[in-house]
Amino acid sequence: MTIKDIARMAGVSVSTVSRVLNNHPDVSAPIRAQVLAVVEEYHFIPNSAARNLVRPQRNTIGVITCGSGNPFHAPILEAIEGELEERGYGVCLRQVKREQDELAYAAALERSEKLKGIILLGGRSDFTVEQAAAVTVPFVCCTYENCFGDLPESAYSSVTIDDEKAAFQAVEYLHQMGHSDIALLLPDIHDRSVGELRYRGYCQALEHLDLPLRERLVLECAGYDMNFGYTAVRELLDSGESCTAVLAISDMLALTAIKALHDGGRRVPEDCSVMGLDGLETTEYTLPPLTTLVQPQEELGRTSVRILTQVIEGAGEHQHVLLQPAFRAGGSVAQR
Amino acid sequence: MTIKDIARMAGVSVSTVSRVLNNHPDVSAPIRAQVLAVVEEYHFIPNSAARNLVRPQRNTIGVITCGSGNPFHAPILEAIEGELEERGYGVCLRQVKREQDELAYAAALERSEKLKGIILLGGRSDFTVEQAAAVTVPFVCCTYENCFGDLPESAYSSVTIDDEKAAFQAVEYLHQMGHSDIALLLPDIHDRSVGELRYRGYCQALEHLDLPLRERLVLECAGYDMNFGYTAVRELLDSGESCTAVLAISDMLALTAIKALHDGGRRVPEDCSVMGLDGLETTEYTLPPLTTLVQPQEELGRTSVRILTQVIEGAGEHQHVLLQPAFRAGGSVAQR
Repeated sequence: MTIKDIARMAGVSVSTVSRVLNNHPDVSAPIRAQVLAVVEEYHFIPNSAARNLVRPQRNTIGVITCGSGNPFHAPILEAIEGELEERGYGVCLRQVKREQDELAYAAALERSEKLKGIILLGGRSDFTVEQAAAVTVPFVCCTYENCFGDLPESAYSSVTIDDEKAAFQAVEYLHQMGHSDIALLLPDIHDRSVGELRYRGYCQALEHLDLPLRERLVLECAGYDMNFGYTAVRELLDSGESCTAVLAISDMLALTAIKALHDGGRRVPEDCSVMGLDGLETTEYTLPPLTTLVQPQEELGRTSVRILTQVIEGAGEHQHVLLQPAFRAGGSVAQR
Repeated sequence: MTIKDIARMAGVSVSTVSRVLNNHPDVSAPIRAQVLAVVEEYHFIPNSAARNLVRPQRNTIGVITCGSGNPFHAPILEAIEGELEERGYGVCLRQVKREQDELAYAAALERSEKLKGIILLGGRSDFTVEQAAAVTVPFVCCTYENCFGDLPESAYSSVTIDDEKAAFQAVEYLHQMGHSDIALLLPDIHDRSVGELRYRGYCQALEHLDLPLRERLVLECAGYDMNFGYTAVRELLDSGESCTAVLAISDMLALTAIKALHDGGRRVPEDCSVMGLDGLETTEYTLPPLTTLVQPQEELGRTSVRILTQVIEGAGEHQHVLLQPAFRAGGSVAQR
């Protein structure tokens, strides 16, 4: 069922069908009804997605999600898709694994799909000028910026929270709640990405608060797999190292910390507090509900689209926007 | 950076670059090294994804995920992508919202992307012959079959668990654990999809066990939003209706039931048991860990690809495969 079939069956031209599907005003009511009757009969619902597909002339933005199945990305992706639709752009969605080179991928996708711009949702923060040169259309880093690379600010846009500051604030909050022995659970302190930034924020907060950095409380679990996080916290408990709070750099890792503490005979938050970062809807429903800093997921997505389309349309320059996470009180942190 | 640029810079032909990237044996070691040096210098990492993009002649399968951000789909999608890669197919990934018509979307995508086959991951189970006629390449329904539609078995393939039976088994298990007042939490008993099937299995099990069907224990929460599930269970508690177990038709809804029971002053599983269906990795880490039936997610994805590619390659007919879910004991169901 193509737009041509619809036109044939409705007895009108392809351009008339196109105008009806795109809600152009210059179609008479009877003709519009006739076309829509066929569209409906053949379930060729003129939804945005299908409309997009039958309009190859539409400008398309590539959206490349890094790390498949990350629940943090789902609402951002939804916001990106919605905002692109509202602005009349098509979307070409792809996901790459964490170990893949998303920039090489983006460059290839740009050519094969004739993209007008690219949104990288998550990814490495160490692009070099040489690497980025392969991408010749405007791009936005969504949820991160290129702080470990050497791209000039004018070469791309970014929309993110300040990851260092978020970790700093989380440690500060835990300290206000009476905690001084605060473990940090993260994949890798040298990941040239969000882990490294949040580790920096953690270290800065300890220094600011005049607390020692205890290396054995920095739990590197080598990835975002839940069992890695779980094992790292169980090992901490087995080591006998004293600790009254765990800050996890993602909500999912925070869940594994709560479970590990529970299985190790510690009550959360009575014996040990746990705080997450990022904020997922799911962790509002887990027991105890997670205390976390919530990223403005919808705003991250929508702002990325707004900036990118302005650059594409010549209506604005590249920008670097920092958004604020919001504190969400759960039941996983107790006053000490 | 395209394969042509690589060829130019390495001083070889495009087909030589292609042979190197695809690990063909008929390239001399020095030439191979020369090409790989350029590939590496320009970070044109010959990962499968990029390789896919620079080989437009490659056969492409469309994968359309219905309902964005469903964590149940992520591991299935990963398995589908892996299996397609192993079999030398490209993948074109799209997601449609639940309210969209995935079949109209598939038909449009088939044309615009010149697809050789389509995998529908989740979706409606009531396609008619007329609707399906719009799709002219082989397709597989992954995680469901067309039981409310009128497609002949020879018109498509399906790989799914038996949803009726799964719900039946869950109720049977809860009954073995001493429960007779078992609520069912689901979006809609008339959704012409997984909800309706699982509702049927629930009813059949009650009949088989000689238990009355109590309508007030059938909690329709009008969607998969977590707050809907939560509210439905809170309302059940407020109604004073007696109930010692809740069967939720998804793990995510089961989480909301546990939270609602907890907030309503009931301990899970001591005062009320909760069982999920589908099985998510996340719910192994929630407290209490969820007792559930786990769908063989990887097998669902890989089998779908295997069948589809056989049909495309003329090596097999359409098939309808039923896989078995596996019981996972958690801590959310207690003996009564």
